[in-house]
Amino acid sequence: MALPAALIVGAGDATGGAIARRFAREGYATCVTRRSLDKLQPLVAQITAEGGVAHAFGCDARKEDDVVALVEDIETRIGPIEVMVFNIGANVPESILTESARKYFKVWEMACFSGFLNGREVARRMVARPMPASGHRGTLIFTGATASLRGAAHFGAFSGAKMALRALAQSMARELGPQGIHVAHVVVDGAIDTEFIRSNFPERYALKADDGILNPAHIADAYAMLHAQPRDAWTHELDLRPWSEKF
Amino acid sequence: MALPAALIVGAGDATGGAIARRFAREGYATCVTRRSLDKLQPLVAQITAEGGVAHAFGCDARKEDDVVALVEDIETRIGPIEVMVFNIGANVPESILTESARKYFKVWEMACFSGFLNGREVARRMVARPMPASGHRGTLIFTGATASLRGAAHFGAFSGAKMALRALAQSMARELGPQGIHVAHVVVDGAIDTEFIRSNFPERYALKADDGILNPAHIADAYAMLHAQPRDAWTHELDLRPWSEKF
Amino acid sequence: MALPAALIVGAGDATGGAIARRFAREGYATCVTRRSLDKLQPLVAQITAEGGVAHAFGCDARKEDDVVALVEDIETRIGPIEVMVFNIGANVPESILTESARKYFKVWEMACFSGFLNGREVARRMVARPMPASGHRGTLIFTGATASLRGAAHFGAFSGAKMALRALAQSMARELGPQGIHVAHVVVDGAIDTEFIRSNFPERYALKADDGILNPAHIADAYAMLHAQPRDAWTHELDLRPWSEKF
Amino acid sequence: MALPAALIVGAGDATGGAIARRFAREGYATCVTRRSLDKLQPLVAQITAEGGVAHAFGCDARKEDDVVALVEDIETRIGPIEVMVFNIGANVPESILTESARKYFKVWEMACFSGFLNGREVARRMVARPMPASGHRGTLIFTGATASLRGAAHFGAFSGAKMALRALAQSMARELGPQGIHVAHVVVDGAIDTEFIRSNFPERYALKADDGILNPAHIADAYAMLHAQPRDAWTHELDLRPWSEKF
Repeated sequence: MALPAALIVGAGDATGGAIARRFAREGYATCVTRRSLDKLQPLVAQITAEGGVAHAFGCDARKEDDVVALVEDIETRIGPIEVMVFNIGANVPESILTESARKYFKVWEMACFSGFLNGREVARRMVARPMPASGHRGTLIFTGATASLRGAAHFGAFSGAKMALRALAQSMARELGPQGIHVAHVVVDGAIDTEFIRSNFPERYALKADDGILNPAHIADAYAMLHAQPRDAWTHELDLRPWSEKF
Repeated sequence: MALPAALIVGAGDATGGAIARRFAREGYATCVTRRSLDKLQPLVAQITAEGGVAHAFGCDARKEDDVVALVEDIETRIGPIEVMVFNIGANVPESILTESARKYFKVWEMACFSGFLNGREVARRMVARPMPASGHRGTLIFTGATASLRGAAHFGAFSGAKMALRALAQSMARELGPQGIHVAHVVVDGAIDTEFIRSNFPERYALKADDGILNPAHIADAYAMLHAQPRDAWTHELDLRPWSEKF
Repeated sequence: MALPAALIVGAGDATGGAIARRFAREGYATCVTRRSLDKLQPLVAQITAEGGVAHAFGCDARKEDDVVALVEDIETRIGPIEVMVFNIGANVPESILTESARKYFKVWEMACFSGFLNGREVARRMVARPMPASGHRGTLIFTGATASLRGAAHFGAFSGAKMALRALAQSMARELGPQGIHVAHVVVDGAIDTEFIRSNFPERYALKADDGILNPAHIADAYAMLHAQPRDAWTHELDLRPWSEKF
Repeated sequence: MALPAALIVGAGDATGGAIARRFAREGYATCVTRRSLDKLQPLVAQITAEGGVAHAFGCDARKEDDVVALVEDIETRIGPIEVMVFNIGANVPESILTESARKYFKVWEMACFSGFLNGREVARRMVARPMPASGHRGTLIFTGATASLRGAAHFGAFSGAKMALRALAQSMARELGPQGIHVAHVVVDGAIDTEFIRSNFPERYALKADDGILNPAHIADAYAMLHAQPRDAWTHELDLRPWSEKF
């Protein structure tokens, strides 16, 4: 019998990887996507080595045809998607005076439009299934950031995309909650222990010694907790922040 | 000597028209844009009849080349832009399950991306000018809505675009305020006295008898007030709402 | 025939004084209160010298009996209160670990409880009067601060009082707006040009040369604008901030 | 050797009781308080029957002397307080026009001032202890409500108290987080399965059949989860809401 599937969109970094590993440990057939299929192989190997099930998909999350085909493929070949995590987003700060139209668009396309495409396709499948006894058809989790709440100077493009993604999550929660779909938005406020931070912000990375940056495995714990909540007490939004982070 | 210019992007409805008329009365060479040049003629005629100066521009506010050319044209032929009002946005509610990718994109392109293009082009001109004695180089006002604050069911696309526009306004205010540019965001919460409301929501329009819908001229008063504020006491955000509106 | 009255609760500082002078110029019989009647005499003299009408009241705004008597006295002897401004509040930052129960209470009593007492008493009078043709029975304005939106470290008492006052303003707006009473909350974010700032924060006061602190007269302009808004386009909340203020 | 203590302030209702039982199962010496000591006996008996440790304290949480003595007593006789949950609050809606000064004060005193007193006393103990290897000295959790975010009509008193409590939680988090104390605020949005709802709102209570009201045990799960978070990924605020609740 097929395992239920967990789809992690944007499993290219430490966070997406940790979330995938976590849901694999929960017994899901984890489906991980990023643009380049090759780069997913180490993650699949790691999950497999840990006794889990993982499937890699090269998918441009910004392309409707790609996303429609991805969800069709998972639902047909692997199993019903019970959890989707949307985890794409990257910020390159820029003065509004020098921000290019191309980059402004690309930031939104990647960090918001992809979320819409993936969220919609998965939601369509979830609502089409009979309501289970639990009344919980599935969970959609969107990863947010400080910029989801506040438009800082030089963050016009990124904050725009993240606030739009938050609006999407709110709208989906209000429409789909009463249909048994748990939609959540997680505001990650602080640096995460990633290769990107290690290489580019060594002084922030040094905070790791003192737990001053987020451990991706702990972010993943929060996502697993959200999916496990009973439907009488769902969380729509929570923040995650190192103890020493200014806010 | 050239009058300073006020650029009203999206002067196609009652609100944009009222704002243009208001700034014309304040002595600005009002530059009004919408996609179709022809449809602007009645507004130009009205402003002229009222003793004001108005110039109409057919401009697709979503096209970078169009916007760059528009601003260049105004600054060269008419005068320095001292006020820009971005007033484009239209909401067609839709379930997230049936929302098309094309429409989701178009709502963002129109209500947010256009705001970025126009705001950036005008800001570039403003910061390039010598600081005036007042320390106030100019004003950029973005029109928001209830959806700027909250993602309601079936408002995923519109709320996403409006929240992203609000993020843009916040980011620009934080970057450009210290450079003498007043950036403001106005949350219009309630139906406006427009042909659209009259035709499509007659029962809401009936509230007009009791001042239950917003008079565009009163919205315009708030915009003129924002532009007139001295720089030691600038408002970044205010709401406008009929007395009887639920909120 | 009696002039309508404007009641300024907390006219002890530059802001309350400027608001009183502004409403006096608008033709109101300005009623100014603070605990010590004597200290109000210079303000009354100034308003009178400017051709306005001013009445001073020694009133402990935290005492229900005082406030009931104050409003009764004004309505009986002077005229119907058409505007009330609540402007009391003072912040003395303190670590939560050393904050005394007495001070925590006093900050709330002064900055919030007084607002409830004065707001309730004036609202009772306003709703009891026949609805005027304008549909606008009167205006209640509460002065907020940055702490109205955010609980910073060492601001637990002050932020608690200011957030509670904001809750009061929101609740009154939702209940009383449909009864013709305009309730507004003004978030003043930044230092104000007062004797207190001049004496205690000289380096902030030095920003005045560059319009980096708020001019009380400009705050007063915003309050007068709020009271003048027609009821189809009321503002419930706006912020006021110097151009150079970080936010 | 002494068990660490968990202090539940306001264990008079189903929620406080469920939280106490949950922390007892986690191995804490649970200290439960309410004004009437007698009424706590059934809860103590239940926890004991479940194999847990519980101590009941009659304490008026609004009285500084009572709270100081309570914390002294627990720390001396029972063990170091590692978790405090503040769970007092009751809402009796009232028009602002008829709200009494006495009730307005009492709502704040109970739902906010008590939170300050208990939070401060426990925080003082926590910061005075040596930092443990985990860097996590303890956890303070404050229970919020919909009114913590929004001042609805007829909720001026309750929303004022709850917003002030939220300000306190934010301020304490910003000051005490960097000292190893996890401060969290939980927004409970919806009816809870309590005797109060069953008796007074039978039509809401009927939603229980369909998981439409919150199960106190599930609220308690969220509190236990918050206390268990590692310090690199602390949540300051989350909401809890039945799947079918409008928001």
